[in-house]
Amino acid sequence: MKGIYKLKDPVYIVASAACVGHEESEGPLGASFDIAVRGDDTFGKESWEKAESELVRLAVSKAFSKALFTDADTDAVLAGDLINQCIGSFFGIRELECPVLGLYGACSTAAEGLLLSALLSSAYSLRCLNVASSHYATAERQFRSPLEYGGQRPPTSQWTVTGAGAFAVSCDVGDAIRAAGEEDLFIPEICEVLPGRIVDAGVNDANNMGAAMAPAAADTLCRYFEDGGMMPDMILTGDLGYEGTQILRDIMAARGREIDDVHADCGLMIYDMEGQDKHAGGSGCGCSATVLASSVLNNIRRGELSSVVFVGTGALMNTMSLQQGESIMGIAHLVRINGRKLKDGE
Amino acid sequence: MKGIYKLKDPVYIVASAACVGHEESEGPLGASFDIAVRGDDTFGKESWEKAESELVRLAVSKAFSKALFTDADTDAVLAGDLINQCIGSFFGIRELECPVLGLYGACSTAAEGLLLSALLSSAYSLRCLNVASSHYATAERQFRSPLEYGGQRPPTSQWTVTGAGAFAVSCDVGDAIRAAGEEDLFIPEICEVLPGRIVDAGVNDANNMGAAMAPAAADTLCRYFEDGGMMPDMILTGDLGYEGTQILRDIMAARGREIDDVHADCGLMIYDMEGQDKHAGGSGCGCSATVLASSVLNNIRRGELSSVVFVGTGALMNTMSLQQGESIMGIAHLVRINGRKLKDGE
Repeated sequence: MKGIYKLKDPVYIVASAACVGHEESEGPLGASFDIAVRGDDTFGKESWEKAESELVRLAVSKAFSKALFTDADTDAVLAGDLINQCIGSFFGIRELECPVLGLYGACSTAAEGLLLSALLSSAYSLRCLNVASSHYATAERQFRSPLEYGGQRPPTSQWTVTGAGAFAVSCDVGDAIRAAGEEDLFIPEICEVLPGRIVDAGVNDANNMGAAMAPAAADTLCRYFEDGGMMPDMILTGDLGYEGTQILRDIMAARGREIDDVHADCGLMIYDMEGQDKHAGGSGCGCSATVLASSVLNNIRRGELSSVVFVGTGALMNTMSLQQGESIMGIAHLVRINGRKLKDGE
Repeated sequence: MKGIYKLKDPVYIVASAACVGHEESEGPLGASFDIAVRGDDTFGKESWEKAESELVRLAVSKAFSKALFTDADTDAVLAGDLINQCIGSFFGIRELECPVLGLYGACSTAAEGLLLSALLSSAYSLRCLNVASSHYATAERQFRSPLEYGGQRPPTSQWTVTGAGAFAVSCDVGDAIRAAGEEDLFIPEICEVLPGRIVDAGVNDANNMGAAMAPAAADTLCRYFEDGGMMPDMILTGDLGYEGTQILRDIMAARGREIDDVHADCGLMIYDMEGQDKHAGGSGCGCSATVLASSVLNNIRRGELSSVVFVGTGALMNTMSLQQGESIMGIAHLVRINGRKLKDGE
């Protein structure tokens, strides 16, 4: 069983774009998103599902324009979301000319897409585009109850992010240099990836996804360090939220690997945990996709962060599996992103 | 936009296994399946969804034992199915030690998995396992109506196959030689792949998936031949059924590429189209997965077929997208499998 995949030919995140809804635009990262629609999370569409596809379309379109290439120049789009049969993604990218690979990794989809894009781009000299999305209203009515019902939420529950994050990936450093902004000093480079395993910790509380996913994040991180992975500036988990974050840190400490000083979680970054009443934090495919695509990658580009180990976390279940007494399994895919000096790449 | 991926290092289908239910065991390919459970499609489980996971577990287990390797020797499992959030797959492979990549390509999932496994195995010297599944009863109650309702079916409707197909893939010819059976003269080798694009032909009849998928199959096949792909002994589509098969052949003929003589469709092979009352034929992720994993690959192994262009076809939609007036989009991924003489590989 292979451990860390070290990419022989480097792969660059040429551009990234995040498109979010109202609540996310009001959060602490609001200013860093490319497109933030205030007020109405329907985005002018007649259903929540169509609104999510519109989020996807906008994020992809923005990532292409920032990357200075188009779908016709792109070799593959890798996409996925939480709506049944991933229709949020497919209808959002229906107009694209290029091949499409559909993914399902629950909330780890952005990481799974980056991992696969990096492996394929490096080996076959490709340009890929990844996108992952979620929408609070599509997730609520599919997984929990209709918004109109106004159900109470326990403190461990998380808030599904309304947002889509898109990443244009290429093995051509020329693509990355052309697309770099004036303030950019570094290019985000994917240098290592590690796919995750299914970890079933026996959690069956649908209002505590963080607890179901944290053991998977710990499994992947421990495998990474045991295989020689170096401690980065930041370990960025996808959407463990408050509860899952504590559990991950406790597991890692118990295994002799303290990460508290470098660990951050997208679910705890996207909302104001004091003022926005989001309970245990953000979740959904769009959570890690939008936080990574905006604030975190921007910090790498500006030299404020030099290395990020991104661990996208997913909860594997559906409403029926819970009703049938099954536990919620976790999975976590790892992608290491280092900053590469822009002048070195020229 | 890249065309055909020609694999520099060949990738072998070391072993394949198919596990099916009662109706499939009664069909013309019944004797070729590895495991055929007659009589009761619950497989001893208490729900249809758990039964589908059991199918997956059995097919994976059989593929591993035929390949003479285990999950601990495997670098990645690529899996997907039609149940919401792909739980049929994830619960079926929950016990495996190795990394997992979840896919969603609707009924094209087996082809998408083989395509990705081949690309990854060739570039990174991996052993991968793919599995795709469907179950008549999980699909009926999720996409159509509960079995107890006894709804009528129009002639264009297809019958979701109860079955899982698993494929052990490796870049090591030694793996393939070790696992070859006594009657095997050839090893199935993946030499070319071509990922599909989304094709929206505007079809919105959920009882005519063949019509929605045929234009995507035509798009992929035309791109394949235009990029220099050679006509194989057999073009094998996934689950176009009777209706989609006619449409595909008509589109291809109109584009100057007659395929009638070499074209076969898994959906028309798995059931007795006269005697089993399956209307337009079989469908579901398990349709192409089980037919390819059994009869077709066995024919390659015995030298009865020397080249197969497998075009897995998928319909991208869910019940809600139809209710919201959206069309059913198609996608089709292509994998070319040639027979390689066993003695040449030694």
